[in-house]
This record gives sequence, C-alpha cells and structure tokens, in this order.
Amino acid sequence: MRGEALMPMMPVTDSMFLLIETREHPMHVGGLQLFTPPEGAGPDHLRTLREDLLRNTDVRPLFRQRPARPVNTMGYLGWAEDDALDLDYHFRHSALPRPGRIRELLELTSRWHSTLLDRHRPLWEVHLVEGLNDGRFAMYSKVHHALLDGVSALRHLQSILSEDPAELSCPPPWGSRRPQPAGRRVPTSRSALLQGTTRVVRQLAGMAPAAVKIASEALREQRLTLPLQAPRTMLNVPIGGARRFAAQSWPLARVRDIATASGASRNDVILAMCAGALRDYLIEQRSLPDSPLVAMVPVSLRSRTDHGEAHGNQVGALLCDLGTNLSDPAERLAVISRSMSDGKRLFRQLSPLQILLLSAMNVAPLAASPVPGFVNNTPPPFNIVISNVPGPSRRMYWNGAGLDGIYPASVLLDGQALNITLTNNGDNLDFGITGCRRSVPHLQRLLIHLDTALAELESATR
Amino acid sequence: MRGEALMPMMPVTDSMFLLIETREHPMHVGGLQLFTPPEGAGPDHLRTLREDLLRNTDVRPLFRQRPARPVNTMGYLGWAEDDALDLDYHFRHSALPRPGRIRELLELTSRWHSTLLDRHRPLWEVHLVEGLNDGRFAMYSKVHHALLDGVSALRHLQSILSEDPAELSCPPPWGSRRPQPAGRRVPTSRSALLQGTTRVVRQLAGMAPAAVKIASEALREQRLTLPLQAPRTMLNVPIGGARRFAAQSWPLARVRDIATASGASRNDVILAMCAGALRDYLIEQRSLPDSPLVAMVPVSLRSRTDHGEAHGNQVGALLCDLGTNLSDPAERLAVISRSMSDGKRLFRQLSPLQILLLSAMNVAPLAASPVPGFVNNTPPPFNIVISNVPGPSRRMYWNGAGLDGIYPASVLLDGQALNITLTNNGDNLDFGITGCRRSVPHLQRLLIHLDTALAELESATR
Repeated sequence: MRGEALMPMMPVTDSMFLLIETREHPMHVGGLQLFTPPEGAGPDHLRTLREDLLRNTDVRPLFRQRPARPVNTMGYLGWAEDDALDLDYHFRHSALPRPGRIRELLELTSRWHSTLLDRHRPLWEVHLVEGLNDGRFAMYSKVHHALLDGVSALRHLQSILSEDPAELSCPPPWGSRRPQPAGRRVPTSRSALLQGTTRVVRQLAGMAPAAVKIASEALREQRLTLPLQAPRTMLNVPIGGARRFAAQSWPLARVRDIATASGASRNDVILAMCAGALRDYLIEQRSLPDSPLVAMVPVSLRSRTDHGEAHGNQVGALLCDLGTNLSDPAERLAVISRSMSDGKRLFRQLSPLQILLLSAMNVAPLAASPVPGFVNNTPPPFNIVISNVPGPSRRMYWNGAGLDGIYPASVLLDGQALNITLTNNGDNLDFGITGCRRSVPHLQRLLIHLDTALAELESATR
Repeated sequence: MRGEALMPMMPVTDSMFLLIETREHPMHVGGLQLFTPPEGAGPDHLRTLREDLLRNTDVRPLFRQRPARPVNTMGYLGWAEDDALDLDYHFRHSALPRPGRIRELLELTSRWHSTLLDRHRPLWEVHLVEGLNDGRFAMYSKVHHALLDGVSALRHLQSILSEDPAELSCPPPWGSRRPQPAGRRVPTSRSALLQGTTRVVRQLAGMAPAAVKIASEALREQRLTLPLQAPRTMLNVPIGGARRFAAQSWPLARVRDIATASGASRNDVILAMCAGALRDYLIEQRSLPDSPLVAMVPVSLRSRTDHGEAHGNQVGALLCDLGTNLSDPAERLAVISRSMSDGKRLFRQLSPLQILLLSAMNVAPLAASPVPGFVNNTPPPFNIVISNVPGPSRRMYWNGAGLDGIYPASVLLDGQALNITLTNNGDNLDFGITGCRRSVPHLQRLLIHLDTALAELESATR
C-alpha cells in the first residue's frame, strides 16, 4: 500500500467517525448548491466547466488524504496520502430525468446522501448536475465527517466562491485560494510521528476496551445535568441507511422583521419556525406527544479567526424547549426565547469526546448484540438537532454562476431520524432537512409546514 | 421489527454472500439492458412507463424478502418479509448528462455497480435511464447474490420479456407472469421452521469457529487437484470498492463462422476472443506473464427445467489454459480447445459450499488481521473468471420496446480484479466487463482488443 511510510496519526475525535460508521449510519456531511449559470452559457456549459476544472490538479492536502489500512481493531488511526488521486472519480457529471423539477433534484440528492464513501480513496465526492427545467445547475458535495464538520465544509465552500460575477478563475471544489506547500503537510520526521502516536495512544487508553460502557456512563452523567426531559416520539427510533432530503429558501428579512417586532433573537424565530412545522407534521402523523419536543442546538466553539488547516469538530450544545405542546405561535416563540436564555446561563459545554461517545452510544445497539432495542427502551436525550451554520452574507458567484442556494445535508444517528440544518446565503435563509427514509414519511411536507409556521409568526407579531 | 414471527431460515450458501460482503466487495450481480422505445414514444415515455409499472404491486416473493436482523455473530441467517415495501425506492428514474453517449451510460453504471444495497430492504434496485443521444433508453438492475446468481437473474429478466412487440402488459422487473399465491411462500408452521433451523445449524456446525482456516484448507485440497498453474498477474491483487464497467455487442454469426471453419466449439472461440484481448491488454500494460493465463469457466449445474422459486447457486468449474503466451491466434484457439476437452474429462465439480469457502478465503485478508498480504503472497488458483450465461435466442420486447442488449455486471473478489461475463441475445453476443477501478486501468481498451481478437480469429481461420 502506498504512502505508509508517512502515516500521520489521526486524532481520536476524527477516527471515531470512521469507527462508528455503519451501513445504516453513513458519517458524511453533504451540501446541495443551486446556481444560475452565467449569461450566454450554452447547453455544454457544465461539461466544459467540469473539463476545465479537472485540469486543476492543485488539491488541498485534506482532499488528498485517505484512511490508511486498519492498524488495529480500534479502527483506522492513520491517514495516508493518495498519490494516485483519481479526480475523475471524485468529481462527477450527472443529470436529472424529466421533467427536471426541484423534486427530481431532491430525489437524486437523497440517493447520493444514502451511500457510503469509498474508504480506499480520499473521503469526498462532488456531483455537477444538469437538467433542471429552469436552466439552472446544481452541485452536490459530500465529505466525510472525519475530514470536515458541517461548519468547516461550508467555510471551505465559501473559500472557493467569489463576490465578483466576472471572476472566472475560482478554484475547483478540491482546490484552495492559498498556494499549497510543495511538500506534504504531514509530519515526516520520526520524532513528530512518534509524538503523534503517543498522543493518540494516550487518548485511546481510557476508552479502548469498552467504548460502549464508557459512552453510556457519559450519557448518564450528562442526563443528570440536563435541564429538560425529552418525550419519546416517532423521530427517536432506530434508523435505516436510506435518506430523504428536502430543501427550500426563505427571505432573511421575514425572520428579521419577526425578531424586531417580538424582541426575540433571529435564531429564536428560526427555532419557532421549526417548532411550528414539527408540531403540524406530528399532528398530521397523529404522533404529537403531550410534552414539548426538546431540540439540541449546536454552537460552534471554533475561533472565527482560525483559518488554518486544522479541522476539529468543536461544538457546544444548548437544549431548547420547542413548546410544541402550545397551539399559539406567539406563546411558542416566548417559551423558546426563554429556554434559550436559560440555556445560555446554564451553558454546559460538551467536550468533543463526549459528543463522540454519545454518538458511539447511539449506534451501539447495532454493533453490540448485548443491548438490542437499546434505543427503543431509553428516553432520548433530545428529539431533534436544529443547527444554524454560518454562510455567506452577500450574493456569491462561482466562475460566473450565481449561487442561489446552499442546502446542508446532515448525519443521522439511531434515535435521531430527522435533522434540520440551515444557513444564511445573501438575503436568504436556506434550509436543508435530512430524514431517515423509513422512519420519517412525507418529509417534503415539512417544507409546507415551515412556510405556514413562518406566516403564522408574522401574523402573531404584526 | 416487522415480520419476525415468520422468519424462514436462509440456506448457509445464500447467507454466506451476506456474511462475506464488505465495502470493498459488494456481492450483487448487475445487468445493463438497452432498449429501442416503441414507435411514436414521446419524450415523457419513460416517466409514464415507470408510473404505470409502479401501480403493479404484485411483487414476486423473492423481491419482497429482506434480511432479518442478525440473530448471531455468524451473520444474517433469516429472511423477513418486508410488509412496507417502498417500490418508489427500488425502481428509480435517472438520466444521462450530455452528450448522452454509451460512454456516459457506462460511467453511470460503474457508479451504481460500486455501491452497496440497503440491507434494511429487499436486496434489489432497478434504474430506468433516459437521455441517450440516439433516443434509446436503458435499464440497470442490481440484485444481491444471496437472492439470485447471474444465471437466475438473467432467467428472471427473460421471464418478464415478450417475443411480441405489440404486447404492452409485460410485468415490471419485480413481477412475474405466474400468478402469485395469496399467502406467503415461507414455511409458517412451527415444525417447518424448526426443521429449517436444524439444517442450518448442522451446516454451520462444521465451519463456524474458523471459516478462514477451513477455506484455506479447501483451497489447498483444491489446488492439489488442479491440472494447471496460474501465473501471478496484475489482475490478481487485492481490490477496492469502486468498479468500472464496459459493454459491447458482436454478431453471433461471426463467432459461429469461426467455429465452423476451425472445428472448435462456439464457446472455445469466445474464450479465444477473450484470450486475444487479455494478451493485447497485458502487453499494453507491460504486464504479460511468460506462462499462459488460466481462466475459470463456470458451468451451470442447474436443471434447465427447474422453473420453481428455488434459486440456488449451483455451478461447476472448468479451468482453461488461455494460451496468452502464444502470438498466433490459431494456435491459441487450438490450445484453448484442447484444454477445454481435457477439462471436461477431468471435470471436477466444486460444491457450492466449496466455491463459497473459496470466496470467503479471498476476502479473508481484509477481515482477518492475522493474514495481511495473503492475496499478494499466494499464487492465484486462476487469473480470471470468464462466464457465458444463457440469454434469449430471439429478439425480445418489453412493453413494446425492443431489447438491443443485455450486458451482465459481475461480482469481483480480492485476487480477481477483472471479470468477463457474456450472454447471447437474439443474433448478438453481449459482453459485460467488470473491473476494479483502481487495479484495472483503461478498462474500455478491452473492448477494442476484443474487436481486434475477433477479426484476427476470422483472418486466421478463413
């Protein structure tokens, strides 16, 4: 196998994402981007664009590394550099069947988001998609969580975009605007490699023999500190491997106006919009629990000035009472707003390792036969993750094409069959909804309910 | 989980295909079909066809069953009936990007053939593909080997076709022309279930603790009986999960004329065509070994009159000297012809279990850490599988569309990075070539070499 002489150790926090991945729980983050092609683009625009970009072989080091072969039963602990990188494999050209509506695009995105990345290669794929009936094109990108979390993936995307519609030399999705060092970024000296190894071994020491046991203890400890109790719902069940994905944009101004009128924060309004949609959806499914749903709201702890290659998964978590038991939208918004303020006071930061152990525990029922039905019998720590990821504040362009939408597609775990992740994009808020295909029927209905919830909040605060 | 009360045991021979499957070794067989649409078909023909077919919910029992949850560490031993079958998931509508050549179709087929089937659902997928620039459409179908082997899959395909271009009520790919019994085909009585369990447990008893050890002993025993020694080649290496697929048709008459002129059988001529192509390819790759390549040629042992639901994997194997060390096509054909006659006299039938154990052994290096590099250090029992699967002898139609081609896509294993499977289809021979994307570069070149080899055989025997 190539590149093994230079095998840098993978931090435990990253390798865990490879270790806990199963067929039912792909551990990649995705993003769907919608573009308006530059004026005068012909029918072969996308093909030409792809061929031009493929000539750019200046690949960011992150996108050249692949998992080295397993060095022990704890999983893949090392990265190797892929010295036979096959860009044609990673960067693909695809098309929509007729009639080429957004519906066909979401269907295709759902399929792509359901399949595992090839571990013999760098852990990313990008698809250029033609055939939308309105003449636009799309790009679906997929990166393993061991490489980049959702926040870092979106930041990477922004780094290849431009504010200038006339700039036609934007980097490809695997590129970077900064010149790449000629050598490798990986530590090549013996002592550096040994240092890395020692650190990894130390991190492993405490958890290797019984990760599941430690994970469930972490959860128990965590639960004692939780200010809220989440009800059991249809969303908190074991999941399958197939996904559904839905996406839509709303004007940021509408959320801002509600925030101004109500005195709540924009994020509170967004959570209230989700809460209203979840309530309507669960009523429609005859599955609304009596007590309110609890959302886990991740908060990035990464310094905004950190623009290095480092790509940790540094997140804190707030738990939020979504007030889904209340029929009045204004009351719901008030409850959410209060819950978020309380949460900030009580703010308890989960360490990245705790979050990872929590994830490991969630998939344990499938890996560890001693605890079948674990997810079914344990109350969920929260009902849904609702994540607001920073995106570009102005309209951006990529080689002359205007970026109309960025819709994040997330990771699901057992017990968490639905995820809402959104981002700001110029004057819009772009929502991406990822659901387990089996557990969350009629996922598209959530888009209608989000629209209704926003309108109700407008009426209630006008 | 649904349907567990009625869990029929899976024969060990079938469950092995689930047990040995890894991300690097998907265990499904595939087929690419090319169709000329009926006259007067409009641009929405395929979409309408799909919607019409989706209304047909008469599903063959085989395509309703999914693996039940693992009952022990030996893997999935039971089938469950999927009582929430989601046909919309299994039967998909896709499109080719521009310019919509066969090249784009093969690229898309390669991607589909590389991904794993979802084990939470019945183990099959069918894709209808539009966007070919010559107005034709394609269908790619994929079935897990635990359900159907290549021969049975092709026989199933034939069963839904018609010789009549005017018949517009052909069944969908999941259907059947025979009426389905109202009840379930699985044994539901306690005693029948127990009998099944006992048989499975007995089959497992001898192999459970150390399947790898038994497998390598089976191989050693087998090798002693092998009349030929296969050289090490670039085709006999550990493989990755990504595939390339190439396909082309040649007129059956050309092969028949060479057979008549030379006195060899048609199958000998086909093998000589493959041998010539492999020789040219390996020369081009500067990897032609001094001693001749050995092909494993599977022979179906299934009775042709067996049209029941049974779907065993019953194959014998002939080893054939491909004479790739010889530069003269006529000499190569003579060697192949002699080798096949010798093989038939020496005919040694591998039991299905032996074949399976051999497969298990091939993937062992990845599963069993004690033997890394196993494939690299052991001479291969043969260099390539070349399989000729019976197809329809006349031109067939499916709901008015003429079947122009049937190209089989096969399973690869460690040590076997290339597979050639062909079938007859009316007046043509349709070749499907499946290769590991990393180990077999420029797979498409084999099509050119096959064409050259056929022309050379014609010149040599004219």
